[in-house]
Amino acid sequence: VNIKDLGGEHKLIETITSGFRNYHRAELTVGDDAAIVRADAERFAVLTTDVLVEGDHFNCTWSTPKQIGRKTIEVNASDVAAMGARPQYLLLNLVLREGLDVDFAKELYAGILEGCEEHRITLLGGDTTRGAVMMVSATMSGVTTNPVRRSGAVPGDLIAVTGDVGASNAGYLTFRQGLRPVGHVLARHLEPRCRLDVSDAVAGVAHAMIDVSDGVASEIRHIAARSVVGARVDSRQLPIHPETAAAAKALRTTAAACALSGGEDFELLFTLAPDDLPALEAEGVDLSVIGEVLPAAEGLVLLGEDGEPGPLPEGYDHFA
Amino acid sequence: VNIKDLGGEHKLIETITSGFRNYHRAELTVGDDAAIVRADAERFAVLTTDVLVEGDHFNCTWSTPKQIGRKTIEVNASDVAAMGARPQYLLLNLVLREGLDVDFAKELYAGILEGCEEHRITLLGGDTTRGAVMMVSATMSGVTTNPVRRSGAVPGDLIAVTGDVGASNAGYLTFRQGLRPVGHVLARHLEPRCRLDVSDAVAGVAHAMIDVSDGVASEIRHIAARSVVGARVDSRQLPIHPETAAAAKALRTTAAACALSGGEDFELLFTLAPDDLPALEAEGVDLSVIGEVLPAAEGLVLLGEDGEPGPLPEGYDHFA
Repeated sequence: VNIKDLGGEHKLIETITSGFRNYHRAELTVGDDAAIVRADAERFAVLTTDVLVEGDHFNCTWSTPKQIGRKTIEVNASDVAAMGARPQYLLLNLVLREGLDVDFAKELYAGILEGCEEHRITLLGGDTTRGAVMMVSATMSGVTTNPVRRSGAVPGDLIAVTGDVGASNAGYLTFRQGLRPVGHVLARHLEPRCRLDVSDAVAGVAHAMIDVSDGVASEIRHIAARSVVGARVDSRQLPIHPETAAAAKALRTTAAACALSGGEDFELLFTLAPDDLPALEAEGVDLSVIGEVLPAAEGLVLLGEDGEPGPLPEGYDHFA
Repeated sequence: VNIKDLGGEHKLIETITSGFRNYHRAELTVGDDAAIVRADAERFAVLTTDVLVEGDHFNCTWSTPKQIGRKTIEVNASDVAAMGARPQYLLLNLVLREGLDVDFAKELYAGILEGCEEHRITLLGGDTTRGAVMMVSATMSGVTTNPVRRSGAVPGDLIAVTGDVGASNAGYLTFRQGLRPVGHVLARHLEPRCRLDVSDAVAGVAHAMIDVSDGVASEIRHIAARSVVGARVDSRQLPIHPETAAAAKALRTTAAACALSGGEDFELLFTLAPDDLPALEAEGVDLSVIGEVLPAAEGLVLLGEDGEPGPLPEGYDHFA
């Protein structure tokens, strides 16, 4: 049985980690954007790790080394932001190709440094070695007094997302067609930015939160599974940039499909009580309400472009 | 300029991380086996990360997937042990080849689970994705009230090492000749074990400590550089298992050369005051004194098999 036939990445992780135990009396949540460990009486540490692999997550033809370095920081900082935390420390493992030019490594680090400076992250160390395929693996810690989990959504909550979605996937799919995307779509794919600019404000009211890394549909599935709720999402309410719509059209798909089934937007997707919406909007957070949380028995429903209900699609799976 | 011409892995890291700043008021040491962060009034957290790459650190022909998983734990736990800390948490990134059999992934995790059970480590989470080359990247945290740095060696200290050295490298070199090593040499290469069994006892008296991952010569160079001292090592005092000596002979080299220039023994190398030696030996710690710490001006000296002084060789470098 290969991983695809088993049911992909999430099923694999579920299958093989079932034997693991918690040996430490930590206030511990696993299976969120980041793990939560109690740090002291007031504060929680959050810990997240991600790996970017050449050919799958990045590509030295499309991206500059500096963009790859910066993206590494943003991907991990986005997980920290999605917990309602501020990033603190970074550990970094680099696998570089033998014979690689030092300038490439320097530029990669320049992107990492730029991200660390912007988000005030301290590099603690790491491991640098060689391999046939480049890889950047980062572990980031953050701190918060109020971690926001995936599990807090309740029926009646609104589902909202910051910024706009689908642009990064539209960019990826355009590259995959052998074309070079432009403007917003290009920038969002090669130079994504996490939403630490608004995450504290959102965390103040969010019941459940996640970042959009594998597509809106996948993230809603995660929140629904952890919170034991259903959800209805209206694809017509997804915030789509005009250039994303144009790129999707050229790809003979829709921007909603790009947003639902592909990720790396690194926007925040969250649920909140309807009463808390006006205050958050008044703070100037760029958000769109895209649906609502339902009782679990009502399942996961997507209203299509025609307003007709249908099943919510799956998100992106690296093994599917 | 490629990385080899620049001067290898350590020079690369030195060059490119010089721009990084510490944004957080932590009691922070970087450049040790693990980074040290103050956790609370009494305790320090140590954080380490390592990556094992298929073809460089492991090989699916030589190792079983379970051995690869277990080695991942031991490599990182060894860094934690070398700080005088006990491991607590693990974050794990796996890059698996597309189409890989699920049984392989299950066995890999069985090895990881086995190591976590033995050392009472809690898996917090991680990332699983695909790539053309397999990689296992682990980040481990530990805790201690008394971190032991590389920087504490003082002239007059003895230099000691636990267990025996050179066996893993002799095993590696035998495999590289197209032969299969046997016995102790095979076991030490494929199934290394960290020294958490004695690390607390050693940490109680050690002035400086490091684990033997890149060879005895490399580890002594690290301690000397951080402590600003010199050292004299007697190659005739290196603890060599008889089977390592036999394997080295078959390779037309010496066991001392295997121990000095190649690593993955995961023994503890440390310095201590001569007065503290008897008590540590009385505790039953299997150690050998291999040299002494000198003033920096006396440099790094190796006494050869004939007792003649010569320069200390370099250790293993992944880019050399």
